[in-house]
This record gives sequence, structure tokens and C-alpha cells, in this order.
Amino acid sequence: MSHRFQTRVWYEDTDLGGIVYHANYLKFIERARSEWVEGLGIDQNSLREQGIVFAVTRIEADFLRPARLGDHLLVSTLPEAITTARVTLMQQVECAGTCLFRARVTLAALGPKGRPVRLPPGMNVQPSA
Amino acid sequence: MSHRFQTRVWYEDTDLGGIVYHANYLKFIERARSEWVEGLGIDQNSLREQGIVFAVTRIEADFLRPARLGDHLLVSTLPEAITTARVTLMQQVECAGTCLFRARVTLAALGPKGRPVRLPPGMNVQPSA
Amino acid sequence: MSHRFQTRVWYEDTDLGGIVYHANYLKFIERARSEWVEGLGIDQNSLREQGIVFAVTRIEADFLRPARLGDHLLVSTLPEAITTARVTLMQQVECAGTCLFRARVTLAALGPKGRPVRLPPGMNVQPSA
Amino acid sequence: MSHRFQTRVWYEDTDLGGIVYHANYLKFIERARSEWVEGLGIDQNSLREQGIVFAVTRIEADFLRPARLGDHLLVSTLPEAITTARVTLMQQVECAGTCLFRARVTLAALGPKGRPVRLPPGMNVQPSA
Repeated sequence: MSHRFQTRVWYEDTDLGGIVYHANYLKFIERARSEWVEGLGIDQNSLREQGIVFAVTRIEADFLRPARLGDHLLVSTLPEAITTARVTLMQQVECAGTCLFRARVTLAALGPKGRPVRLPPGMNVQPSA
Repeated sequence: MSHRFQTRVWYEDTDLGGIVYHANYLKFIERARSEWVEGLGIDQNSLREQGIVFAVTRIEADFLRPARLGDHLLVSTLPEAITTARVTLMQQVECAGTCLFRARVTLAALGPKGRPVRLPPGMNVQPSA
Repeated sequence: MSHRFQTRVWYEDTDLGGIVYHANYLKFIERARSEWVEGLGIDQNSLREQGIVFAVTRIEADFLRPARLGDHLLVSTLPEAITTARVTLMQQVECAGTCLFRARVTLAALGPKGRPVRLPPGMNVQPSA
Repeated sequence: MSHRFQTRVWYEDTDLGGIVYHANYLKFIERARSEWVEGLGIDQNSLREQGIVFAVTRIEADFLRPARLGDHLLVSTLPEAITTARVTLMQQVECAGTCLFRARVTLAALGPKGRPVRLPPGMNVQPSA
């Protein structure tokens, strides 16, 4: 089952087109990933003290419909594929049942020198069938 | 030939990983597109008064190496494919000759009701061979 | 009594100092003001269709202690003074009972030509004694 | 004489009011401070390796007139007062000779534990008469 996260569109998220600035969807889905990681029992602050950070290595994103000021957004996050070093997630932003944005996001865990390291234990969730 | 745009990494662009926050590369390449559009003789403010805005409809992005505080970045923009309603660009961010980020970005022109309209004249640049 | 709003620190909010980038506290308190305005029964989207927007005209801000990734922040908002055209608010960001940031914010309502107009009805809340 | 820095308004800086989002002026003046510090021969990356960062402790800001998409902004920075631990700057954003934004910004140097430390040598520029 997918992880679900709620967030809202504030003034700061909009641009002069009157809608959400496109790069900000990446922030929305990153918030959801942070909560997803937290829900797996992984503490990003502790990881960081060990010199380990998660890095986005690839994003394929479709901007389908605009979100607007005040919208209550629902971000769903679903693991699609996992290897020892990488996880690929499907993430989707919807508002009132309509999908606005969809992305496939690949993350790697990077060690102290910026080299890929094993994903932390707990991350090896089983992708949904 | 590709359009070239220079920008710099400021404190605001970094995150606690000590490098540029991933979503900010989308800002860097959007600045470059704005200047590219301007260079084609298209005035986004006038277009907007006619109710026409450019919207990103798809991005495929690879995050290759991190940019850091103070880096002088060079963003190159190259049209790859153009139809009456859409243009696809290859954009790349490099620093000191090393490619840090690469994206294929598809843009559409949207009219007053958010419906796709023809790209403005001037946009129909010939993609490079 | 002050209006209370909760928000959380995400990766996007931090900088390479490992703490929240200073300008982002202004976003946090703006989110709180949006919810405060909404709670007064004022619809910013409707106002905007009439050409009326709220503009910050002055901020005096003290950055007392840093907020960090994952922090759950509480923003309190309290009207301090109100005239027909302006409202001054005291806003404060705290985490776990410690005040991190404090600001006095003055807002004006601006009409279609960017000229000051009367604050919308509903805004004339009585400042607390 | 004041330090001068140029920057431009991009799409990312605007909000649905059609003008620059208020918090972004803080980014503009921070870019100018970074370049001002660099011009004093201080390397923020080296400082940071020693555990020293500059922190904004207070801002008093007046938002006078809005900046708009495409505007070429000039940020001027002028030291107003300096002690061993703090520097206060007057910063101003103008466009085509009109002042849009003005702020008095106080900075402190913070050491490894977030405690105030002496400002780095080079910072002790003489405030203008």
C-alpha cells in the first residue's frame, strides 16, 4: 500500500501564472519521502552524523494539472523497485481526487565521500505487487 | 548551437547535505529558458497579458554530481523537437567543464483557459541537426 | 488570544549551515497569516478577483535560535494594532516551548493599481489588551 | 562607498500577486552579502570548515515598491556599525533608480557550538562616515 502525506499550497508556492511554480512539486514529494523514510524507522539526522545522505539521482515527472493557492494536496509514495544501492518510487500529487502531478524518483544512499553505499536497513521494503 | 546562460550557487540554494538542494536545478534551467525565450524576441510579460503562459509538461532529469556554494554554473539549452504546440529542450548544467545535471524538458503554451495553444511565432527555431 | 499554526521543517528549508535558512522563517509566518486570514472568514482568492491583495510593508525580525530538520514548529499570530488601511501583527515561531524567531509584521491591503485600500471587513479584529 | 551587486527577477521569484514574493528580497540581499564578504577576502567555505558561519540575528525591512519578472535589480550594501562580534549593514534593492526595498541587517559570526565568536579578520571594514 502506498504511503500518504498531506500538504497545502501556500502563497510561497505560487508564481505569477497564478498556479504552483513547477519546481515546487519536487518539494512536495520530497516532504512525503521524508515522512515515508521516517515511517520506516530511519532517522535522517542520525544517518547524516554517519555521513550518509539520500540523493535523488533521477526524476521523470509529468505535470498534468495545476495546483492552486489553498489546495489541500495528497501525496502518495509507492516503492517500485529496490536494489542494494537504489530505490525507485512512484509518487503522485492529487487534489480532491484528481491527479495533478506524477513522478518516478530514483534515490541512492551516498556515503562520506559522495560514493554510493548500501541503503540503510529498513529501506528494503517489499515493492507492492 | 546551444544557448548558454551563467548563474551562481548562493546560500539559499544549498541544503544541510552541504550541496545544492535537488529541486533548485529546475530553477537554474528555468532561468536559462527565460533568457532563451527572451533571446528569441518573445516577451513573456506581453504574452501573459494575452493570457498565454508557458507550462512545463514533462521533465526527465539526471542528477549526476553535486553543485556547491559559490560554484559558477553554465546552463546550456538546446531545442530537440518542436511541434505546433510543444517544444522539447535538452538542458545541461555544468561547472568548470563537468556536467552536473541534465534534463529533457517539454514545454507547452497554454491559453486563457489553461488549454494548449500554438507556440508563439519566433519559437519555431530549427532544432539542431 | 493568538492564532496558532503548526508547520514542520523539511529538507528544502535547510541550508549548508545545517539549520533553517533565515529567509524561510518569513515563509513559515506567512503560512500562519494565510490561515489566520482564512479563519477570519476572508477568502484571499475572492479578494484577488477584485484586485485586492495583502502586501507586507514592514518586517522587524529577530532570529533567536535555529530550527532544524524535522522540527515541529508552532507559529503564533497576534494582532497588535489595526487602522483602516494597515494591520500590525506579532508573530512568533517556537519549537518545544522555546522561541526561535519573533517578528512584527505590518500588512496593507492594496487595490488594483497597487494603491492602499481599506482592509477587508472581518480584518478589524480587536487587538488583544 | 557601498558594495554593488546585480541580480535579476526570475519566474521562481514571483507569486500569484504578479510581483516578487516578499521573502525573496531577503535572498537577493543575502546574495549581495555573500559577494561583499568574498570581496573582503573572506572565504565562507574555509570558515565553515573551521565551524564558523555567519548568522543573521536581526532584520528591519521596508517593502516599498514591488519588483517584477525580468527586472534587473541593483543591491547596495553598506556597513553601518561594527563591533568585535557583530556587523550591521544597510542594504537596498533598486530598479532603474527607484528604491524598492530597504533593510538594516545585523550579522553575527557563530562558532562550532552556535556561540558567538569574533568576526573574522577582514570584516572590520570602516563604516562609512
